[in-house]
Amino acid sequence: MSRLTVALDAMGGDDAPEMVIEGVSLACSQGDAFFRIFGDKAQLAPLVAQYDVPDDRYTIIHTDNVVTAEDKPSQAVRRGRESSMGLAIQAVKDGDAHVAVSAGNTGALMALSKIMLRMMPGIDRPAIATPLPTMRGESLLLDLGANVECSAENLVQFAIMGAAYARVVFGIECPTVGLLNVGVEDLKGHEAVKEAAKILKDAPLPMKFSGFTEGDGIGRGAMDVIVTDGFTGNVALKTTEGTARLITTLLGDAFRSSWLARIGYALASGGIKRLRNHLDPNNHNGGMFLGLNGIVVKSHGGATAKGLASAIGVALNMAQNDLNSLIMEDLKNFGGNQVSDDDAQSAGDADRNNNKEQAAAGSGT
Amino acid sequence: MSRLTVALDAMGGDDAPEMVIEGVSLACSQGDAFFRIFGDKAQLAPLVAQYDVPDDRYTIIHTDNVVTAEDKPSQAVRRGRESSMGLAIQAVKDGDAHVAVSAGNTGALMALSKIMLRMMPGIDRPAIATPLPTMRGESLLLDLGANVECSAENLVQFAIMGAAYARVVFGIECPTVGLLNVGVEDLKGHEAVKEAAKILKDAPLPMKFSGFTEGDGIGRGAMDVIVTDGFTGNVALKTTEGTARLITTLLGDAFRSSWLARIGYALASGGIKRLRNHLDPNNHNGGMFLGLNGIVVKSHGGATAKGLASAIGVALNMAQNDLNSLIMEDLKNFGGNQVSDDDAQSAGDADRNNNKEQAAAGSGT
Repeated sequence: MSRLTVALDAMGGDDAPEMVIEGVSLACSQGDAFFRIFGDKAQLAPLVAQYDVPDDRYTIIHTDNVVTAEDKPSQAVRRGRESSMGLAIQAVKDGDAHVAVSAGNTGALMALSKIMLRMMPGIDRPAIATPLPTMRGESLLLDLGANVECSAENLVQFAIMGAAYARVVFGIECPTVGLLNVGVEDLKGHEAVKEAAKILKDAPLPMKFSGFTEGDGIGRGAMDVIVTDGFTGNVALKTTEGTARLITTLLGDAFRSSWLARIGYALASGGIKRLRNHLDPNNHNGGMFLGLNGIVVKSHGGATAKGLASAIGVALNMAQNDLNSLIMEDLKNFGGNQVSDDDAQSAGDADRNNNKEQAAAGSGT
Repeated sequence: MSRLTVALDAMGGDDAPEMVIEGVSLACSQGDAFFRIFGDKAQLAPLVAQYDVPDDRYTIIHTDNVVTAEDKPSQAVRRGRESSMGLAIQAVKDGDAHVAVSAGNTGALMALSKIMLRMMPGIDRPAIATPLPTMRGESLLLDLGANVECSAENLVQFAIMGAAYARVVFGIECPTVGLLNVGVEDLKGHEAVKEAAKILKDAPLPMKFSGFTEGDGIGRGAMDVIVTDGFTGNVALKTTEGTARLITTLLGDAFRSSWLARIGYALASGGIKRLRNHLDPNNHNGGMFLGLNGIVVKSHGGATAKGLASAIGVALNMAQNDLNSLIMEDLKNFGGNQVSDDDAQSAGDADRNNNKEQAAAGSGT
């Protein structure tokens, strides 16, 4: 497998499988990766023809088994290993693909990924990360819901993974990293966030730790990477989406409020289109699962073909730059400096993590 | 004190004391309340003249002591009782005013209010609540940062207080109440939010408990009252502000991007002005402190005179409708049904709460 290969869950997402195959077609025109497409062959064969996916760029692997949007993570783990989603993850595990991409059920994808790929050594919990548009460009926010409760150590590991991502995908040599909090002073927040700040302050890591930021730091782009627990991160992400929808709806009403306003809209439409582009989730699509032994990217369930192609592009970028090796190297440097007897324990870590994963798999979000 | 009386901290807020006195002048034209104004008489006397505050509507009580924006809550508690902020709270405690309003340091105001007014019987922790603009009108969000960690019981008490507020201030007979979470299914979230949902489900309360909502439920106005812990609520509130600022900034850029766009803006400006009005925090100004033996309202530090007048209006509405009696009645009905031996303990509650407050006062946010 010298050529970059994407394992694709063709059956996940609101408009799957058509949106997925259209996305593959788009991705084929943007790069030279190869696609292992998992799903119902009877549906997929006509679609690859319709969207002119070149014959030498894909193979379809048939399965009837599908994880639905309604399936609980525990159900996916019990019954979904042979699904289009499960097989795509298995392909990464078996070395048949560099990355897996799915627009399906997030909780199921996380639970299956944890069980099948297991945690990277030195990482206790995986995180879901996504870039969000800001005043300055984009910032990475994590965790977005893989863990409803997080310890200081979890937050520190998220910071290390997020910073590595920013170096690889954003191309920032020494990214700024901050912790989401209810104030910027040292005394603010709960124990986990205060303790994480203490650890990160002097850590020998290729990042600039910039302390705390409040919720408005997300839109401002206060830091390149903003770290929080999965409960707060999920609420913040969804709040961003809800606020954007509220404002654009009200704006639409404003522009329909009179004939003059309609003409005004027509005149300003170039600039407004650029604004919409900047905010369009399809241009920032991709929830990266970080901390696993393999790269898995979750595309938004309602993504368009363009959005899916963008998620594929991010996944390939992560693979090409070997993000996981970078994270492991940072963890090693960090661990060696911080907790000197960690190395002796590292052999047993994988096993202990595996037990933890199985216990947690049913509660993925 | 038959006339409704407002105790006003004239020295708190970015543009105090001028903004405060202009706000009093505005409030005088909107109602017939009386104002006890606390602060530096030398600065205040010329301002009341300049803004034509009628002589029979106010009295100025001089103090040199001021709580600054930089003061920590613990400093305010030690040194701030004689400040304009502390004296305003004392006036409520002594029965010289129905409500206290301040645009000063939130953490200091909360710490002083807790120490001086103490908790209402049956409430373990106070909450900060604010109405936010939504697709449907407005929803009350609480807690916004009084408590970084909350138990299920705290969340239930917040729900009871929020529902009472919605009945009094929004005028909704049976408000819908929901809990902020990372999903809407029963299994989602941490223990506190799951347990709170179980308790609220069948509680004999004048509200319709509607289960969970995600972050986008805030902008959508999914429920009249949305309850969460102070950490998540603070992040959600600030995220809303940051997103709104991001979008309106980008929109401004869009409208300045060409001459045609500028003309377009001019034509659409009526509708855009209505949009801005709906989103303007000055029209939704006022962080209510709920759960104390007295009504304290925090105006935004950057509020305009109009914003301060709006906060005063909300505070007077709460006093006029005797919000605190309503809350106590609901708590009594709820407690009687839920935990039958609670009543026997209630006499001791006040004392225990008082001790807890003193321990917590230094960590107000």
